[in-house]
Amino acid sequence: MTEKPEIPSVLNDSLIAALNTISTATLTHQLQMRGVRSTFMSGLKPLHPEKRMVGRARTLRYVALREDLQAQYAGGVNAQKRVVESIEPGDVLVIEARGVPDAGTIGDIYATRLFGRGGSGVVTDGALRDTPAIADIGGPVYHQASHGSTYGRQHMPFSADEPVTCAGVFVAPGDVIVGDGEGAVVIPAALVEEVVANSLIQEEREAFALEMVASGQPTLDLFPLAKERLPEFEAWKSAKASAGAKS
Amino acid sequence: MTEKPEIPSVLNDSLIAALNTISTATLTHQLQMRGVRSTFMSGLKPLHPEKRMVGRARTLRYVALREDLQAQYAGGVNAQKRVVESIEPGDVLVIEARGVPDAGTIGDIYATRLFGRGGSGVVTDGALRDTPAIADIGGPVYHQASHGSTYGRQHMPFSADEPVTCAGVFVAPGDVIVGDGEGAVVIPAALVEEVVANSLIQEEREAFALEMVASGQPTLDLFPLAKERLPEFEAWKSAKASAGAKS
Amino acid sequence: MTEKPEIPSVLNDSLIAALNTISTATLTHQLQMRGVRSTFMSGLKPLHPEKRMVGRARTLRYVALREDLQAQYAGGVNAQKRVVESIEPGDVLVIEARGVPDAGTIGDIYATRLFGRGGSGVVTDGALRDTPAIADIGGPVYHQASHGSTYGRQHMPFSADEPVTCAGVFVAPGDVIVGDGEGAVVIPAALVEEVVANSLIQEEREAFALEMVASGQPTLDLFPLAKERLPEFEAWKSAKASAGAKS
Amino acid sequence: MTEKPEIPSVLNDSLIAALNTISTATLTHQLQMRGVRSTFMSGLKPLHPEKRMVGRARTLRYVALREDLQAQYAGGVNAQKRVVESIEPGDVLVIEARGVPDAGTIGDIYATRLFGRGGSGVVTDGALRDTPAIADIGGPVYHQASHGSTYGRQHMPFSADEPVTCAGVFVAPGDVIVGDGEGAVVIPAALVEEVVANSLIQEEREAFALEMVASGQPTLDLFPLAKERLPEFEAWKSAKASAGAKS
Amino acid sequence: MTEKPEIPSVLNDSLIAALNTISTATLTHQLQMRGVRSTFMSGLKPLHPEKRMVGRARTLRYVALREDLQAQYAGGVNAQKRVVESIEPGDVLVIEARGVPDAGTIGDIYATRLFGRGGSGVVTDGALRDTPAIADIGGPVYHQASHGSTYGRQHMPFSADEPVTCAGVFVAPGDVIVGDGEGAVVIPAALVEEVVANSLIQEEREAFALEMVASGQPTLDLFPLAKERLPEFEAWKSAKASAGAKS
Amino acid sequence: MTEKPEIPSVLNDSLIAALNTISTATLTHQLQMRGVRSTFMSGLKPLHPEKRMVGRARTLRYVALREDLQAQYAGGVNAQKRVVESIEPGDVLVIEARGVPDAGTIGDIYATRLFGRGGSGVVTDGALRDTPAIADIGGPVYHQASHGSTYGRQHMPFSADEPVTCAGVFVAPGDVIVGDGEGAVVIPAALVEEVVANSLIQEEREAFALEMVASGQPTLDLFPLAKERLPEFEAWKSAKASAGAKS
Repeated sequence: MTEKPEIPSVLNDSLIAALNTISTATLTHQLQMRGVRSTFMSGLKPLHPEKRMVGRARTLRYVALREDLQAQYAGGVNAQKRVVESIEPGDVLVIEARGVPDAGTIGDIYATRLFGRGGSGVVTDGALRDTPAIADIGGPVYHQASHGSTYGRQHMPFSADEPVTCAGVFVAPGDVIVGDGEGAVVIPAALVEEVVANSLIQEEREAFALEMVASGQPTLDLFPLAKERLPEFEAWKSAKASAGAKS
Repeated sequence: MTEKPEIPSVLNDSLIAALNTISTATLTHQLQMRGVRSTFMSGLKPLHPEKRMVGRARTLRYVALREDLQAQYAGGVNAQKRVVESIEPGDVLVIEARGVPDAGTIGDIYATRLFGRGGSGVVTDGALRDTPAIADIGGPVYHQASHGSTYGRQHMPFSADEPVTCAGVFVAPGDVIVGDGEGAVVIPAALVEEVVANSLIQEEREAFALEMVASGQPTLDLFPLAKERLPEFEAWKSAKASAGAKS
Repeated sequence: MTEKPEIPSVLNDSLIAALNTISTATLTHQLQMRGVRSTFMSGLKPLHPEKRMVGRARTLRYVALREDLQAQYAGGVNAQKRVVESIEPGDVLVIEARGVPDAGTIGDIYATRLFGRGGSGVVTDGALRDTPAIADIGGPVYHQASHGSTYGRQHMPFSADEPVTCAGVFVAPGDVIVGDGEGAVVIPAALVEEVVANSLIQEEREAFALEMVASGQPTLDLFPLAKERLPEFEAWKSAKASAGAKS
Repeated sequence: MTEKPEIPSVLNDSLIAALNTISTATLTHQLQMRGVRSTFMSGLKPLHPEKRMVGRARTLRYVALREDLQAQYAGGVNAQKRVVESIEPGDVLVIEARGVPDAGTIGDIYATRLFGRGGSGVVTDGALRDTPAIADIGGPVYHQASHGSTYGRQHMPFSADEPVTCAGVFVAPGDVIVGDGEGAVVIPAALVEEVVANSLIQEEREAFALEMVASGQPTLDLFPLAKERLPEFEAWKSAKASAGAKS
Repeated sequence: MTEKPEIPSVLNDSLIAALNTISTATLTHQLQMRGVRSTFMSGLKPLHPEKRMVGRARTLRYVALREDLQAQYAGGVNAQKRVVESIEPGDVLVIEARGVPDAGTIGDIYATRLFGRGGSGVVTDGALRDTPAIADIGGPVYHQASHGSTYGRQHMPFSADEPVTCAGVFVAPGDVIVGDGEGAVVIPAALVEEVVANSLIQEEREAFALEMVASGQPTLDLFPLAKERLPEFEAWKSAKASAGAKS
Repeated sequence: MTEKPEIPSVLNDSLIAALNTISTATLTHQLQMRGVRSTFMSGLKPLHPEKRMVGRARTLRYVALREDLQAQYAGGVNAQKRVVESIEPGDVLVIEARGVPDAGTIGDIYATRLFGRGGSGVVTDGALRDTPAIADIGGPVYHQASHGSTYGRQHMPFSADEPVTCAGVFVAPGDVIVGDGEGAVVIPAALVEEVVANSLIQEEREAFALEMVASGQPTLDLFPLAKERLPEFEAWKSAKASAGAKS
């Protein structure tokens, strides 16, 4: 009834493991440095700030309600049902709702199904419906608002697995979505390898800088890291590595 | 000094008990299905998401400050004092503040009095003042913002127990207000019995659907519930009922 | 490299001790009563609602990004670095970011340095970056949003320790900033002594009123406190004082 | 059917004549100087910037649509019909529509009736409907938006000739409304005489200042007018007066 | 290169002639009466309020800029070029720009081409670029803002002739767009015949009501038209008809 | 009393003559192509859309009102007076008002003085006061709103001739401001020569493209201009030049 989507995934276990250690701030910065400026989703709140989310983007686009077409778009096995019933393990559902705060875009039953199918999370720039029940499921969710009404108050489900603009960011199916307590960021599929590799380097330098600053040193030659201090950084890395090896 | 208000109440113990089990999402949906689309209050946050609130609407309307009239409207036993001092057990105070975020509409002393008189909660589309102290009282409160200033910065208390528009929803004294972790919804007094009865039916069907979906079934014939599965649903109900009877 | 700022401080231990007991609501009201109406910062959230913040204002002003000037303003030891590296114990950094929600204004490394130098807190009407890591530092922070991007997406650091407008409030270096679970308020340096003295009086009266109201009395002659009840209030104060003395 | 409203009018021919010569900016400033800060209606556009409007406030309050009450409030001789059919010569209809831009609040037929009864103008913080036809009537109208839908999309007419908040300003029936190309201002009924008298003085001084500035003089001792230049101003006034007498 | 679009048109000369006489307010009301509430485009301004626009919807959807995909979507014969170069006489281009005010969505060269191909108008919920030059072309245009930047500041052209949401209204290619001095309304293709027929009846009744009201009659039994006055209305119609016949 | 400002001007007669022929859209595009994306001032309206404005930026910064400092900042020869009284021929006053719509930032007397001293225009992201009188002066003005109140309702004049952020754009004294019917753009002083030279080339190509498109040709190889058509363009240029020479 709902067929397996033809969406290439660029993720593998090592990338997922790495992405689970990198902050959305670092990923956003790495994309900024490549001239990709709009990747962090603005104005969304994490339902579980302590959770992390990593997954492949699956998309759902809502359009404005027009009552004469409601049966056509909302009836039967609509786009919302199709995308939820074809979620695969590791998928993150990204919903375009035009930033409308006063109508639900997903409720507890579809959220239960999504996470039950192994989905990694949900991102909507509209409202959640049944927020308390969705929170109880425990999976990562990013949303703009909560509202008791169904989507039928403002929306019609229109398309599944086509590109959307969510919270100001363009998302194509297959892009990688990462979330933490700060929010959610979209990593273009084609840039994931490069962004992850460079993010790990950046985070190691920042870990060194943070440790030095926490110990009372000024930020001036630590952030960004000055050439003069690279040997010290290298030594710190080796020490950490051997310490890691020992333990 | 402040006389008992002549506000009919449609609530009774069984309705209150039922309403304490129904989500605001279900109530909002039942009203949507009756063509009443604007009943969930948009843009408000629960101060205690884990609390539930059920009660009869009592109303307070603020109007824009005009300094030449401040003594007349804010002085003496103004509308705010009148409504707070006539709160009866089970009342929810609904405050119209035109969505203004940068002036208080109720502070800790009035909130203490309101809950001390048995009030069930407070809903304001303006700001709370003394938010930490109000939070300590522990009663359910829904608000748009927090602000340290008194209402005198932007408002004058104008009328008590007359209809208001709060957070985009028309509320008449005597309407029923229900709140949970999602937010607050207004149930027109005349529709409460019908909405509650149908909500209980809806929630039982959704409980069945949710249990099936949680067990790994697709949503397709469960939400909405397909005719073919009604016998299964009835059997599930009976089983639950007898289980309930046994325990 | 970054010299000690010439910013007079009006705070002393007894003022700080007093300010740690006064709500931002009371301070805001005392300023309203003196005709100073815009002192509570609108639209900001506390990162740690349970924390209190008291300190001397230090300021950082961001201006809109103009790429042709980015190197000039953001490069080298820019205004952000200068102000963070000259933070003194008890300073609160107040950041003007024009209310822009979608670009960071301070991240975990600078926040670590700021609190490491003894800073008392941070207030920004823009976004935090690295919000989870900043939350872990544990110090009081007030912000409008969270965003993964660096300030370079929207801002250039422009000036340090010059007056700013933050969250709708004018702040001069040396003003006093107080924060609690409601938000943050600016007390003009020249008014601190007077505002604190009168706030203590107001809070004692409100403590009496609150105790009476909590015990079931009406608010009518308690808030504001009627002349007839002053003797009762004085007696209550003496009782409390001797009780305090005994213990 | 619709009885004559009991609304005292403070206007008389000489006040109206004077008000037709005073800018809304001067009237707003005179009210500011008396501590009444919110009197100019924010965010409204004049439909005929070249027209002036002076009249007594008549009011109409819309509340949020609730479909279960639509028949009760919108049906029959509703508040909109009552107020329009009781307009008297010189009345200005002020409509509270909560700043909602996407629903009409008055259309061409009611506007034709209002001006046909001698009404002086219309002010709404909602939308006009039939804007081109209303523009053709030619009378002064101030509005926030234009929209093709009827009020039934968002509103119910609720009350006539009771106080309202329109475009951020409190308006009581009987207040005086003045409009010009800048917008519309509310003059509290009790302050009209005083405000007009002082506005005439202010405008004469500003006319002198403007003439001097236009002739190339600096603003410094002209605006505000310095004591040293009062004799010159008095001479200018006398000259103008005798010139006026001669012609 | 750009093939003729397969878009059915429901318009014919008599419908177009009729639509050129009906106000957008009447059309919007007829749709409201059929339960279709969101058809008038909110928040747009006519560039030529005196012009009327009638045509078949052609659509262009912009998505948020993502620099890594700019070449792919904006380069070559992109969606904007395709739709403009396939405009047929009577088409109205409807642009979805997510309500973004600070980036152009169409400039003078494409607008010249569009009108040169016989297009009937342009509707965008984003900004015009080259507004003065577009105004000089003289054709009807509805827009939210004006901005000097190209779409590349915020947008990528994504699709042509697929459904869009513009200014809050769902528009499918082939729907009918009508504009006048009030704004623009979308008539679902399937409802055009019925809406036009009923609009003509409504406008005739309102013309009668308006004439009576203009002659000094109350609105009460004229708007809506009371049964008792139908004979009078019929007589008025016949009189007008014969008058029309004579002339 | 107010000394001549030390602000270098990069403008000369030929640059001014050229800038008077270039649209703000072309200038904004040339800056975009150089990576300077925020130069067109968003959300401002021209008071005289038919006028053009070219000049050197002079700046005035308003900060939020704080009543305890009003005398200090607004009294005496404040920043507003200083900048207006030191305007030189060709200066454009750019006012930072934090986008606040409901308080004046400049009125008719100061505007008269500014244009009387030879000023080229005014740009404010706040409100005009005395809009009708300012319109009568006839000089180019760009503003966000109109309001009858004086700046004292929300602002204090803070600094003159220091960098500001106006309508989202950073402006330094000495930058070049150009306005037309679309709005106003800021050209960084250091880029003016280059931007003007390239804008003239761009406009000539677009004039050719526009002429071809107006004559019925497709846009495809004209905008942008394809290499194959350069000879044709060169011929068109020569023809125009000799035609110009002849006349």
